[in-house]
Amino acid sequence: MRALIVSIGDELLIGQTINTNAAWMGEQLSSFGIQVGEIIAISDEKETIQKALRKGVEENFQLVLITGGLGPTKDDITKKTLAEFFNQKLVSNQEVLDNVYALFNAYGREVKPVNIDQALVPEGCTVLINNAGTAPGMWIENNGTIFLSMPGVPREMRFLMEKRVLPKLQEGYSLPVLVNRTMLTQGIGESEIAERIEAIEDGLPEHIKLAYLPSAGMVKLRLSGRGEDKEALSKEIDELFQKILPHVSDHFFGWDKDTLEGNIVEKLKLNQLTLASAESFTGGNIGARITAVPGVSAVYKGGVVAYTNEIKEKMLGVNPQDLETYSAVSEQVIEQMAIGVKERFNTDFGIATSGIAGPEGGTEETPVGTVWVAIAHPKGVWKERFQLGKGRSRVVVRGTRMALSQLLKLIP
Amino acid sequence: MRALIVSIGDELLIGQTINTNAAWMGEQLSSFGIQVGEIIAISDEKETIQKALRKGVEENFQLVLITGGLGPTKDDITKKTLAEFFNQKLVSNQEVLDNVYALFNAYGREVKPVNIDQALVPEGCTVLINNAGTAPGMWIENNGTIFLSMPGVPREMRFLMEKRVLPKLQEGYSLPVLVNRTMLTQGIGESEIAERIEAIEDGLPEHIKLAYLPSAGMVKLRLSGRGEDKEALSKEIDELFQKILPHVSDHFFGWDKDTLEGNIVEKLKLNQLTLASAESFTGGNIGARITAVPGVSAVYKGGVVAYTNEIKEKMLGVNPQDLETYSAVSEQVIEQMAIGVKERFNTDFGIATSGIAGPEGGTEETPVGTVWVAIAHPKGVWKERFQLGKGRSRVVVRGTRMALSQLLKLIP
Repeated sequence: MRALIVSIGDELLIGQTINTNAAWMGEQLSSFGIQVGEIIAISDEKETIQKALRKGVEENFQLVLITGGLGPTKDDITKKTLAEFFNQKLVSNQEVLDNVYALFNAYGREVKPVNIDQALVPEGCTVLINNAGTAPGMWIENNGTIFLSMPGVPREMRFLMEKRVLPKLQEGYSLPVLVNRTMLTQGIGESEIAERIEAIEDGLPEHIKLAYLPSAGMVKLRLSGRGEDKEALSKEIDELFQKILPHVSDHFFGWDKDTLEGNIVEKLKLNQLTLASAESFTGGNIGARITAVPGVSAVYKGGVVAYTNEIKEKMLGVNPQDLETYSAVSEQVIEQMAIGVKERFNTDFGIATSGIAGPEGGTEETPVGTVWVAIAHPKGVWKERFQLGKGRSRVVVRGTRMALSQLLKLIP
Repeated sequence: MRALIVSIGDELLIGQTINTNAAWMGEQLSSFGIQVGEIIAISDEKETIQKALRKGVEENFQLVLITGGLGPTKDDITKKTLAEFFNQKLVSNQEVLDNVYALFNAYGREVKPVNIDQALVPEGCTVLINNAGTAPGMWIENNGTIFLSMPGVPREMRFLMEKRVLPKLQEGYSLPVLVNRTMLTQGIGESEIAERIEAIEDGLPEHIKLAYLPSAGMVKLRLSGRGEDKEALSKEIDELFQKILPHVSDHFFGWDKDTLEGNIVEKLKLNQLTLASAESFTGGNIGARITAVPGVSAVYKGGVVAYTNEIKEKMLGVNPQDLETYSAVSEQVIEQMAIGVKERFNTDFGIATSGIAGPEGGTEETPVGTVWVAIAHPKGVWKERFQLGKGRSRVVVRGTRMALSQLLKLIP
């Protein structure tokens, strides 16, 4: 089954709203074995909506999912256009009307004429009752294509997809088996990975595809397979990743929705170990990422943001003489920061960063992008200098990731 | 000028990547007076890319912006398809090759054959040098339509748009005069603002539109005008904002690209005042946002992430008896945190947060979303309790913003 997603709304075209709906639907549909062939975002005008409907018919999509333009205000014309396109009258649906009244009563609000109009649906459609709002979903079958219209409000669209649309598709259609798995790597470029695994990539079977998905300091490798037998396909993909792994093991940190911080917290909890942070140029980003993980207070005690030399001395016990002699971005100072925070916070691990994020502050010896990371652990101190390029926020993001990725490796 | 945005990549269709590129481009293009007619996301196959190029031609778009599929690996076929579609050979471009070598040398990395291939471009295209990466942008004019191909990496695409594409479009084409200005408010809902400024909104002239752009804890008000004379239009919009301002002045914090942290740092510098932070549930987010501002080390000394009670006592001097009696999320404790960090870091301001971000840790008296913020300033301590709803990351984002917005008000 091949699907077309049609997102309606001028706010998408002028960039006021990011199309998260389409991404969410794409992920859901793929996991159900429905291939999303194309996503289009169009303005809420009759002609453009009609053109999208024609596209669905002419290009033989089996499923056309339309979101947006079912709200109570005047500028919503999707419903009228749908009825006209399929040559159907708009009729009032009692079940939808009951739902509108029930919802308004629950909030103690008065039902207005615009709300009553929400019960109008094309005569031949199957109504999908929306418990998350007043606008129903509509399911219209026409010459082998299913047209689905849903509100653009994310919460309402998701309710309809999860509770109405996907179960109905799963029940009525035999969907193929798709398996996607993603390997996460850090600190290695796309082209270097490609070179390392060239032979494996060239030998991939026809039904399994490899994609490289890069973002700041991180590359995801995705294998997507299509087949008949979910278990066999999963096994095949797992085996391929087991072949890839040795070539990138020095940069591998997790799978699929894993995050560095999530894996760190999990490993610390498992081993009942604790952590504290001493951040200079990352300014709190390590703490912020670590504390984004629920339940982290069992293992993360906190940290010091030591942005000035004065604070490095006073709160972490760094030797003022060393700050003077070697500067704050040096092996001597980063080591003392990591040990200092580990001791003062009485933890098993102390992670420390110091660097020049720029744009100012670089010198010939220590240019912008120079970064020291140290981790004091139960057996000693690991430390390393990195050159992370330019761009203040990028240096911070990459430095944070470098530090977390090394920490993950050091936790037993 | 009407534009088509073509986003290439299977990761968009299966929902692994949200199409933020298209939204960003839509916003930029609109602000330059270019109308985005449609956004399509397609898979990286030759046939679908060709179809998108044909669509650009057949539907008379004057501008077709293509992103994705210019990386160094094999799954990138955009470039070859472009060359084939326009019947051009791929030739090596010396300037691009020099850029590849310069970038790799700067990082001390070896140039590999796949990287050298990045210098291949369609023979007749205008090359747009990419200082943010190795893949160039390509500008191809064909029968009155401009086809633009850019890498999908957001940083690289943005560089090319800002430094190459938009200036070139502005120079070579007479774009209509558009003026956009945005007023930033914090801590007030969209509908309340709408009620306060109803009369002004109803009286807006035809050529100026008002939009409400809400995001977590913040609402932007945008006035967009269309006209002939940029200066007159700017003046008209400024005057309208001067009328709106008194109605929202208690929640106003800046204009356009202003950020809370940027304005805070600017005011601190101007008055030669210093700041330290004591963060519990925000876990480093205040430090991270403040240190995102270049040159902040003159005014921000650092802070303590005091995630556990132990650290609140030890590093900030909070009374253990008060932690026991009132809990960490209390007026008594937040006040001591703010004063403690101000004194220990010897600063003019101490900002402190303590709260329950959830999902666990809530009680009947202090449910998830309960947050205390305090700011110790030269004349005393301001403090307040907020109820910020549910959702761990949302509570953290909103709490951080509440704290920063109050700090901005307290700096003279």
